[in-house]
Amino acid sequence: MFNPADHPHRRYNPLVGRWVLVSPHRARRPWQGQQDAPERAIRPSHDATCYLCAGNTRANGAVNPAYTHTFVFANDFAALLQDTPAPPANDDPLFQASQAQGEARVICFSPDHAKTLPELPLDALERVVDVWVEQVAELGQKYRWVQVFENKGAVMGCSNPHPHGQLWASNFLPTEVEAEDEHQRAYYAQHGRPMLVDYAQREADTERVVVDTEHWIAVVPYWAAWPFETLLLPKAHVSHLDQLSAAQRADLAVAIKQLTTRYDNLFQCSFPYSMGWHGRATNTDEDQPHWQLHAHFYPPLLRSASVKKFMVGYEMMAETQRDITPEQAAAQLRQVSATQHYLASA
Amino acid sequence: MFNPADHPHRRYNPLVGRWVLVSPHRARRPWQGQQDAPERAIRPSHDATCYLCAGNTRANGAVNPAYTHTFVFANDFAALLQDTPAPPANDDPLFQASQAQGEARVICFSPDHAKTLPELPLDALERVVDVWVEQVAELGQKYRWVQVFENKGAVMGCSNPHPHGQLWASNFLPTEVEAEDEHQRAYYAQHGRPMLVDYAQREADTERVVVDTEHWIAVVPYWAAWPFETLLLPKAHVSHLDQLSAAQRADLAVAIKQLTTRYDNLFQCSFPYSMGWHGRATNTDEDQPHWQLHAHFYPPLLRSASVKKFMVGYEMMAETQRDITPEQAAAQLRQVSATQHYLASA
Ligand SMILES: O=P(O)(O)O[C@H]1O[C@H](CO)[C@@H](O)[C@H](O)[C@H]1O
Ligand SMILES: O=P(O)(O)O[C@H]1O[C@H](CO)[C@@H](O)[C@H](O)[C@H]1O
Repeated sequence: MFNPADHPHRRYNPLVGRWVLVSPHRARRPWQGQQDAPERAIRPSHDATCYLCAGNTRANGAVNPAYTHTFVFANDFAALLQDTPAPPANDDPLFQASQAQGEARVICFSPDHAKTLPELPLDALERVVDVWVEQVAELGQKYRWVQVFENKGAVMGCSNPHPHGQLWASNFLPTEVEAEDEHQRAYYAQHGRPMLVDYAQREADTERVVVDTEHWIAVVPYWAAWPFETLLLPKAHVSHLDQLSAAQRADLAVAIKQLTTRYDNLFQCSFPYSMGWHGRATNTDEDQPHWQLHAHFYPPLLRSASVKKFMVGYEMMAETQRDITPEQAAAQLRQVSATQHYLASA
Repeated sequence: MFNPADHPHRRYNPLVGRWVLVSPHRARRPWQGQQDAPERAIRPSHDATCYLCAGNTRANGAVNPAYTHTFVFANDFAALLQDTPAPPANDDPLFQASQAQGEARVICFSPDHAKTLPELPLDALERVVDVWVEQVAELGQKYRWVQVFENKGAVMGCSNPHPHGQLWASNFLPTEVEAEDEHQRAYYAQHGRPMLVDYAQREADTERVVVDTEHWIAVVPYWAAWPFETLLLPKAHVSHLDQLSAAQRADLAVAIKQLTTRYDNLFQCSFPYSMGWHGRATNTDEDQPHWQLHAHFYPPLLRSASVKKFMVGYEMMAETQRDITPEQAAAQLRQVSATQHYLASA
């Protein structure tokens, strides 16, 4: 008899149309591979050598203002630039290039060099949400896609420990987003409802729920790729951040604080992840009823604060593979506190 | 005027149908993020504590034979098992699971604990090629897909430094392979020739070529995602490893030795990567003229032996992004020797 907690099987990610191989029994194998240093250093609230702290000078000589809550500035090393010319047209299907115009910005979450999202007070977290909303509204007037994201932790390629996120806006729909657009569109055409609104409802009381507030729900999705991956969804249909009501915004701060507190408590470390927001395409008149706003959290850790999941050989060549089941991951996240951060209780 | 070595642009990967954002100017940004320890330790030829050395006892108590060239055994912690039952049928499109049956094997490249592929003599490398061929032929009789791959280096999740590769065979076509199958099929339907046979011909004398032997060519593909990614292709049309002639097999050892020697010489370290083979689906009567055999090499290093490219936030949420252009990467690889390994010349 099939037992999902024991037998290898595949699960389908309907948002992008890809399968994930789940091999629960493999969690028992010994690990002698690479260990990363867990993020447990207690940082000062202000670091004179930090490029992002208030009043400091950045790498390019610009001086940060004495900001008191959030601070947004143009990325000094932006991957996308505003005035990039188009490559010449070419009809060889094997050598296709296309124009990329855009902007990249950095969002300092607060002047406090020491405080990551779960450690910020709720009103400071609300300011972060407000900045996301404002930036999507502003850049969305000019660009087709506004990608809000955060790389947290050195293991996720974050080059500065001062808590900050990023914004990359582009005149094109990025590849991963195109996949989500296509699959949500097809689901809507067939079922007449947005895929992720249906999904949130069906997960309402399941074992995969890790955060459940008035307006938001976070689950380890049935098709999660990363061990402790979560999907954060509004319970109502909302196309993008700029469409959230004041109540949904305030409650989003609560949901994020709970989710990231659970993450930090799991292995008692500053839990690394990449997170990002997806919503409807911007700067277009097209009606996009199939789009439901959501955030993905992709944390790499697997067994402990220092042993992560490697998405390598088989995963790169063939198919994403995970060891523990999404249900087991959710159970672990549910066991730790959503409100008492391990450092605050120390 | 557009200059691909300077202006951000996107390139299209026709094999999987995804775009890559190229931001050449960004290579100039300073790096203060994570550094990984380069692999430069000189290892002994035999390590009594190694699970993979000849004559040693493995984690599960099995004893390795006193093998003298390659050694293949069933993975003690296989992600795929032979007799897994099927999940119950379920018509909810949001909760789809499917059966996964398969086998996983480990391939020790040689008894020498110290010698990675570029350091093996040519005849030993030929034995590795022969084992790949034999394994694909054998497992291909039972399984629809046989994934041959190698994770090299701790930074690529390799848990044992003894040079070895893996084989994961499955009763299904993995997701990444399905994408390649679909795109090669569509190209063949439209052009009447296999995509990658055309591609190898068109790259024949370009600046992206890094290895060019009698029967093989390796290029940094026009659409490379990883900084020093390469695509290794036979010049003739060959559907899978088991269809190679004796001459193509012997010459494959030469090509791999040259390619991996260039990699090691680039930053004078044991260059980490994940590599893997793709060929036609097995255990099927279907004619698959669209399939062309190839190997992908995905090395993570970017700036030096200790600074890698992080595929994180924007890449996970939106689109793969690279800093140096494929042409710049190829130029660097062409500058170092393909025949004199830096350790041998020390
Ligand atoms: O099989 P290994 O070497 O123990 O494990 C390694 O390769 C596997 C296949 O790519 C991955 O799933 C693991 O995350 C990685 O650590
Ligand atoms: O922009 P940063 O923080 O310098 O760089 C980091 O995030 C980027 C966007 O996800 C990635 O492309 C880089 O590889 C990563 O190191």
